[in-house]
Amino acid sequence: MVGVKKKGCRTERELHHMFWDTNLWASLRVAGSGSTTVPAPDLLVGNKNRKLAIECKSGKDKRYLTKKEVDELKLFADKFGAEAWIGARFNNVDWLFLKPDDLGISKGENYFISIDLAKKKGISFQELIKLN
Amino acid sequence: MVGVKKKGCRTERELHHMFWDTNLWASLRVAGSGSTTVPAPDLLVGNKNRKLAIECKSGKDKRYLTKKEVDELKLFADKFGAEAWIGARFNNVDWLFLKPDDLGISKGENYFISIDLAKKKGISFQELIKLN
Repeated sequence: MVGVKKKGCRTERELHHMFWDTNLWASLRVAGSGSTTVPAPDLLVGNKNRKLAIECKSGKDKRYLTKKEVDELKLFADKFGAEAWIGARFNNVDWLFLKPDDLGISKGENYFISIDLAKKKGISFQELIKLN
Repeated sequence: MVGVKKKGCRTERELHHMFWDTNLWASLRVAGSGSTTVPAPDLLVGNKNRKLAIECKSGKDKRYLTKKEVDELKLFADKFGAEAWIGARFNNVDWLFLKPDDLGISKGENYFISIDLAKKKGISFQELIKLN
């Protein structure tokens, strides 16, 4: 496990603990997300009222998501009864969260998230957990 | 990974796919359940109306659960907004599901589930997914 994948795990774990630290949300990291035969987000978090399925991306300034990745996040969230979110943790930038429909569209029907886009369309962790 | 732990993974995966096969439920297996620093069930499943946090036990005829294991299942379920269940898959017996309060009590404030108890107080997979 090297590079982006390793950093992915570290930032995913960071977000996982941020939810627990609120004392209001439970969070769990999903086994084999990205490599199982059925759709699975990276994190699933919930409180008594809301459930969030979150795909996490971290890196320097731009990350791509395949159409399959986004479709499966939406499918999982729809079936489970959760909101679908993409969480972006760019180097030296706090977490920002976007809905799948706010992702940028790249070639071949794939998607991307960049720092600019995340700052323009995303919301902060505090905003995310306070939405109704 | 040997013995009970290996069989645990196999039966847990079986149940995971049984939920997906209904076409009405989404299921996910939790990363590092039983070894993380925060409470986590083995499986978390949901549909638009219900969420179930499930601790899975499999074996020949009797399995023990520590007080900590049961307390953490209840704590996770309460915080996440899910029902807490113990799923038992004894050899040559279909899955049976019990609420934590229906577990047997063993020495030292721990708990157990046996085939007899599961058959007496448990419900089937079909009953579980049809509860309101």
